[in-house]
Amino acid sequence: MKINENFQKLPAGYLFSEISRRVAEFRTNHPEVKLIHMGIGDVTLPLPNAVIEAMSKAVLDMADAQTFHGYGPEQGYASLRDLIAENDYKARGVDITPDEIFISDGAKSDCANLGDLFDVDNIVAVCDPVYPVYVDSNVMAGRGGELDETGKWSNILYLNCSADNGFVPAIPESKADLIYLCFPNNPTGVVASRDQLKAWVDYALSNQAVILFDSAYEAFITDESIPHSIYEIEGAKECAIEIRSFSKTAGFTGMRCGYTVVPKALKRGGASLRDMWNRRQSTKFNGASYIIQCGAAAVYSDSGKREVRENIDYYMNNAKIIASALKAAGISFFGGENAPYIWFKAPNEADSWALFDRLLNEANVITTPGAGFGPCGEGYIRLTAFGNATETAEAVKRIVSLIQ
Amino acid sequence: MKINENFQKLPAGYLFSEISRRVAEFRTNHPEVKLIHMGIGDVTLPLPNAVIEAMSKAVLDMADAQTFHGYGPEQGYASLRDLIAENDYKARGVDITPDEIFISDGAKSDCANLGDLFDVDNIVAVCDPVYPVYVDSNVMAGRGGELDETGKWSNILYLNCSADNGFVPAIPESKADLIYLCFPNNPTGVVASRDQLKAWVDYALSNQAVILFDSAYEAFITDESIPHSIYEIEGAKECAIEIRSFSKTAGFTGMRCGYTVVPKALKRGGASLRDMWNRRQSTKFNGASYIIQCGAAAVYSDSGKREVRENIDYYMNNAKIIASALKAAGISFFGGENAPYIWFKAPNEADSWALFDRLLNEANVITTPGAGFGPCGEGYIRLTAFGNATETAEAVKRIVSLIQ
Repeated sequence: MKINENFQKLPAGYLFSEISRRVAEFRTNHPEVKLIHMGIGDVTLPLPNAVIEAMSKAVLDMADAQTFHGYGPEQGYASLRDLIAENDYKARGVDITPDEIFISDGAKSDCANLGDLFDVDNIVAVCDPVYPVYVDSNVMAGRGGELDETGKWSNILYLNCSADNGFVPAIPESKADLIYLCFPNNPTGVVASRDQLKAWVDYALSNQAVILFDSAYEAFITDESIPHSIYEIEGAKECAIEIRSFSKTAGFTGMRCGYTVVPKALKRGGASLRDMWNRRQSTKFNGASYIIQCGAAAVYSDSGKREVRENIDYYMNNAKIIASALKAAGISFFGGENAPYIWFKAPNEADSWALFDRLLNEANVITTPGAGFGPCGEGYIRLTAFGNATETAEAVKRIVSLIQ
Repeated sequence: MKINENFQKLPAGYLFSEISRRVAEFRTNHPEVKLIHMGIGDVTLPLPNAVIEAMSKAVLDMADAQTFHGYGPEQGYASLRDLIAENDYKARGVDITPDEIFISDGAKSDCANLGDLFDVDNIVAVCDPVYPVYVDSNVMAGRGGELDETGKWSNILYLNCSADNGFVPAIPESKADLIYLCFPNNPTGVVASRDQLKAWVDYALSNQAVILFDSAYEAFITDESIPHSIYEIEGAKECAIEIRSFSKTAGFTGMRCGYTVVPKALKRGGASLRDMWNRRQSTKFNGASYIIQCGAAAVYSDSGKREVRENIDYYMNNAKIIASALKAAGISFFGGENAPYIWFKAPNEADSWALFDRLLNEANVITTPGAGFGPCGEGYIRLTAFGNATETAEAVKRIVSLIQ
């Protein structure tokens, strides 16, 4: 019996469990202090009424043999796939057919499970800083190599992001096979322009690479020139898989629903990646919940769209509050304009965790240390716009007065 | 870019898609004929009221910021894990702690994803006939080897089941590392006695193997001497992972909820498999839906338990109807006593698919051909007890008159 030894290579501590530990310690020592949460990327507004009504009805469907729903299609209900094709793609001039769309229990599962389609012997490229799931799931699959003292894996190609390149990485000079891109970006909140995405598509096409494009935050884009989907770029259907989520768009973090698009035009090694993903999902997944899919379908109703827009506007107003306060204080930052994340560096503190601790202990605000997303995040802090507006204003006031 | 070539080894046709194709063809040619479905393993009774009420409330929780639930624990809510530990284990004298229980979106996902914990270089043992997911997920991971003309994979150890051993396989003479066992069994409906399970636990302990025990059908056991959990066997915590489902127990096929138990005592290669599964689920999964988990918790309420029992009794009454009719006709069969499946061979037909076609075309009953579950299933047919009682009686009458 041999276990998968790659698991043993992963460092024990997770970013968010370390944050929880420090917060719990603070709370034990200072039970009287009310902390403001600006760290976790979870939504706080309740679900849209349209979603609630659709799910209430779906629950009752399950109470009657005539309307009961047992096993659904592993790919998701056709009605929901049709709505996605129509609203998320056709409405933006992109032709994606429903049978290229796979509904799942969330973008995190899809991001991680997509690795099943690829050989262990591929070069993975990720941005630094990056959403840890891309890296950790590949390390588990044996694509990491060894961890060095700077926190980088020997077989992973890191696309360095910094203030110099506006946290949008340059096209690498060496060859990568699997490229994870996330725009609008978590954690930095930056977006990629059409030209920047075009350069990545061209690179992938000429290297026979596959882009795994995470567009979980596309609903937060306000600048009309920024693509919402990689498929707005010519040639992307021949080289990209797109992963989307209802979590941040419609407040579905506790509901569990997302989807992945694998175009039929995407072929590698003579095989259709769409057919491979279909086989993977049919074998290792049993469809998303009927009730949750009914809720997701309601996101595309007229009232659903209006309510979702209102919630996103609320969060983006928080982002504006944060951005304005930082700007007024002369603190430079990234994001916040087309994403619910703001990424900034304190003028007088080069260590993310030290800054995290000062913000926790002295400003009583919980944030996320940028170093937790990769070595290039060192010195930075991620703030999220998913909180309450009044608390957000108070928190950013305290942050500014502490670090200015 | 190298794709995972193991996918290309899998035969294109699935059992259930081939059945659907033949049924669709029949329906096109005979639109006037009403078919009775005795094939698919899906439930038909609506959800218990206790579950409906709990989910209706949970949906409303999501409509109010005060009771809204965002991201939940990847391992599932502690309240549900406590109920499982108490009701499914402690009540049967088994000490499983809540932190050894991992809630998921279903047993199919867990069965397939558990492979992540093990090296590609392990000998997998499966019963023949078998639930195809065990085999296909291992083939995808590279543990299959090559497919031979009899439908067997060169690197998989098949535990042959037949009428001679009552479809409970003998302990193998060679060494296996990962052993998939499912009792009550899908597709044969047979159960394993305490002594039979003890022999497997002893084998696993002495070979340092791991048993993946699928007890999705434990709620259908009527014989009090039959173990519901592998952990009722001494030593099992050091060698077994148990996978369970709310699907068949409580009608959750369209809901998506199951759980997996990985005891802390289970260690291999110096590592805790519980900690590895925790890391896998934390990295590649984001928890089951809050609403669905609230529904699952209601299964353990007094009224939930009563209603679940009534539904299971209804299905088991169908099993009795089938069993009595076959017995009266002198047709021998397996299962139906402690499982919702009946497994029989026609006296005058040695080919599963030919028998399937005759039952479809002449008796107008949809069944499942045993050969679809593996070479040892050849000649057999699986009937399920999940239908309507009147239709079930009519279907089995037609089957008997056709094959007798």
